[in-house]
Amino acid sequence: MNIAIIGCGTVGAETAFLLTKEKKISLKRTNAEINLKYIVDIDFTHAHKIGLDKALFCDNYEKVIEDKSINIVVELIGGLKTAKKVIEKALSAKKHVVTANKALLAHSGKELMELARKNNVTICFEASCGGGIPVIRAITDGLIGNDISALFGILNGTCNFILSSMTKESLDYSFSLKQAQKLGLAESDPYLDVSGTDTAHKLAILASLAFGNEIDFDSIPVEGIDTLELQDVAYGQELGYIVKLLAIAKKQENGLSLCVRPAFISKEHPLSWVSGSFNAVSVYGHATGHTMHYGKGAGGKPTASAVLADIHSIAIGNSKNSFDSVLWPDNAEKSVQLSPDEIISRFYIRINVEDKPGVLAKISACLGEKNISISSVLQKEPISGSSEGVPVVITTHNAKEGNLKKALADINKMSVVKAKSICIQIADEYRNNQPPSF
Amino acid sequence: MNIAIIGCGTVGAETAFLLTKEKKISLKRTNAEINLKYIVDIDFTHAHKIGLDKALFCDNYEKVIEDKSINIVVELIGGLKTAKKVIEKALSAKKHVVTANKALLAHSGKELMELARKNNVTICFEASCGGGIPVIRAITDGLIGNDISALFGILNGTCNFILSSMTKESLDYSFSLKQAQKLGLAESDPYLDVSGTDTAHKLAILASLAFGNEIDFDSIPVEGIDTLELQDVAYGQELGYIVKLLAIAKKQENGLSLCVRPAFISKEHPLSWVSGSFNAVSVYGHATGHTMHYGKGAGGKPTASAVLADIHSIAIGNSKNSFDSVLWPDNAEKSVQLSPDEIISRFYIRINVEDKPGVLAKISACLGEKNISISSVLQKEPISGSSEGVPVVITTHNAKEGNLKKALADINKMSVVKAKSICIQIADEYRNNQPPSF
Repeated sequence: MNIAIIGCGTVGAETAFLLTKEKKISLKRTNAEINLKYIVDIDFTHAHKIGLDKALFCDNYEKVIEDKSINIVVELIGGLKTAKKVIEKALSAKKHVVTANKALLAHSGKELMELARKNNVTICFEASCGGGIPVIRAITDGLIGNDISALFGILNGTCNFILSSMTKESLDYSFSLKQAQKLGLAESDPYLDVSGTDTAHKLAILASLAFGNEIDFDSIPVEGIDTLELQDVAYGQELGYIVKLLAIAKKQENGLSLCVRPAFISKEHPLSWVSGSFNAVSVYGHATGHTMHYGKGAGGKPTASAVLADIHSIAIGNSKNSFDSVLWPDNAEKSVQLSPDEIISRFYIRINVEDKPGVLAKISACLGEKNISISSVLQKEPISGSSEGVPVVITTHNAKEGNLKKALADINKMSVVKAKSICIQIADEYRNNQPPSF
Repeated sequence: MNIAIIGCGTVGAETAFLLTKEKKISLKRTNAEINLKYIVDIDFTHAHKIGLDKALFCDNYEKVIEDKSINIVVELIGGLKTAKKVIEKALSAKKHVVTANKALLAHSGKELMELARKNNVTICFEASCGGGIPVIRAITDGLIGNDISALFGILNGTCNFILSSMTKESLDYSFSLKQAQKLGLAESDPYLDVSGTDTAHKLAILASLAFGNEIDFDSIPVEGIDTLELQDVAYGQELGYIVKLLAIAKKQENGLSLCVRPAFISKEHPLSWVSGSFNAVSVYGHATGHTMHYGKGAGGKPTASAVLADIHSIAIGNSKNSFDSVLWPDNAEKSVQLSPDEIISRFYIRINVEDKPGVLAKISACLGEKNISISSVLQKEPISGSSEGVPVVITTHNAKEGNLKKALADINKMSVVKAKSICIQIADEYRNNQPPSF
């Protein structure tokens, strides 16, 4: 099998390194014949730095795709436009494709899979979700006999690092972000990470595989971590919850509810323990119950490990077998994606009110009218001199998000309410490995 | 593909249930054609209970193996003798085999693989380690590009449940065991679990795959949890450690060190959070760094999920590809297994001494003579009236276990030492995902 890597950034260079300099180490456990023939880019700074063989360098990807001896094209350019063109050309030339491009797959996965199928080749993307964690394989192979009812993921190391700092060190968002930037764990423009967009890309991919459905990326409601306040992180901890930027996919009665948002998860749930830049995905299968897949979600070497696993699977014929047998999004039905209003969950709400008698009664009446039942209340002593009023923190039993939003709109209009109320989903642990009963 | 399940206990019956009653649920994500033709046993109590189709029942496994239409034989009898005969006959009849039989694989894995290879079929055993966790696939497929330096596993749910009770509820060993038995989490004869033997079987299998070596099961040093004292669990917690029955495999300079024993693991390490009857395996790859694979380690349905994954992989051709390409123990070199004396690690020791001046100096001198350097000391106020003396708890820096044992033998001979000293390995977190430097 002859390989061409297109895009020689960190992941591309590290993949090339594994396939050449470390070939004896990284592939000593298999007799598959894998031979790196080209690395294509116009800038080889990183490649030079780690001492890759210059004979592999090439600046023309079209030439590489025309080379009939190339069996596998590894797209590691990133972004939507050029990457898509490269993959389309490679598939059309009947070459297998390996990619780490979550944005492209979230937007055009189905289309690219159809093209691969038409050309009797395969497209693999273990590296697109959770870096070095072999979670796509777990879903499409190891857990194949399971009807999956829910999937929760911590899929962005930058956000998880920032939230861990906020939780453990009580540092506020902007300080935690700066710290992450200093450590090279956040980009100078952190938008794609902190907005939740990157996590949503990964959720679209994982959910399409777990539920055997085509997912409409644009309908996934996405909230980032940039507006999260330190006081809510702290109140949550007091109540036994840790905040995480969660990708949530679960089957409800009438369809699939998907979202990306900062959410509270019980301190007893293994996902709450995932700290720093690590990622993890919890999958609930009807037979296995809860499984969790944990590891480094980004970085050159972990991601290269996933790319290598895909190259190897293609080389020995397994990827093609799976692509032909398992239900991939391109041959699945379109999923029924519920609107955010239909999400059923428990919620945390914080309402800042004037310290007057009868306020809590008014708020609970307003929640009751919308069928929202209160699970716990935490009211703190007023901070003297604060113009923001007294925070009343309420956790609810399961409720429809739409109803809660209506109740909060009414509550926000009350004269005793001093600021816009805060609402954070509580992603309850699935007790006994069963989805919560609604 | 026609399947025969031999052995209709919990796992056999649940596998049959997934393949018949729940076929539409469990295999809706694949177009692989899998048809259960027989379930063989002499006792169908469990099968009747869950409503399996009687037309599948058969009491003669030889007849089933003679049936030319059967492609896959699933051995779920357990034990060594009959199970081995069944597997040998099935492989010789050129049928693929799926088994959950860790004891048999630990003892005769290599031999059975050779027989499978000779007959151009494959033997799959995802269900043998970690129940529903797809960890064998993770090692042989998802992490194939990694040179694995270490593997730590919590592989026995019974032991983990008992240790969790000891840690969280401060219940002693025999009370915790009784509780586990009451809940059906421990057998009435718990020997195979609490002695560490079951964990050692699984370690032998996982290590042979992770390190690409044949493992000699009988050379693995195994200690159980039945002599663990509550006070050591408590002192460990005070020092920041949680006790787990750990399967440990790591590469040292001169070979592979393997052992099963109650060991301390840092509260910061994700394995320390695995509680109750859950299992988890931490794998350290040179590219991925730390990955952890978590889920239910036993039980009918989770184990059946793993059996189903193997059946599916065989049906679509992937198991055979992997068996032919990846380094399995039968075509690997024999590993250099270090003697327990060669294990390099940190250790916790507790020495009960008379409350006299100069005792600590004597002990540290004795440790120093054997090149063991002290990391921390915890000495409690004496309990008045206790004849056991004062416990002195010491943690060491990295030391050779053989040297520590010699030092402890000398210490135990001292007249001021009131009881045999206790020694527990500290399985340090691999910082920065690198093995500790020795």
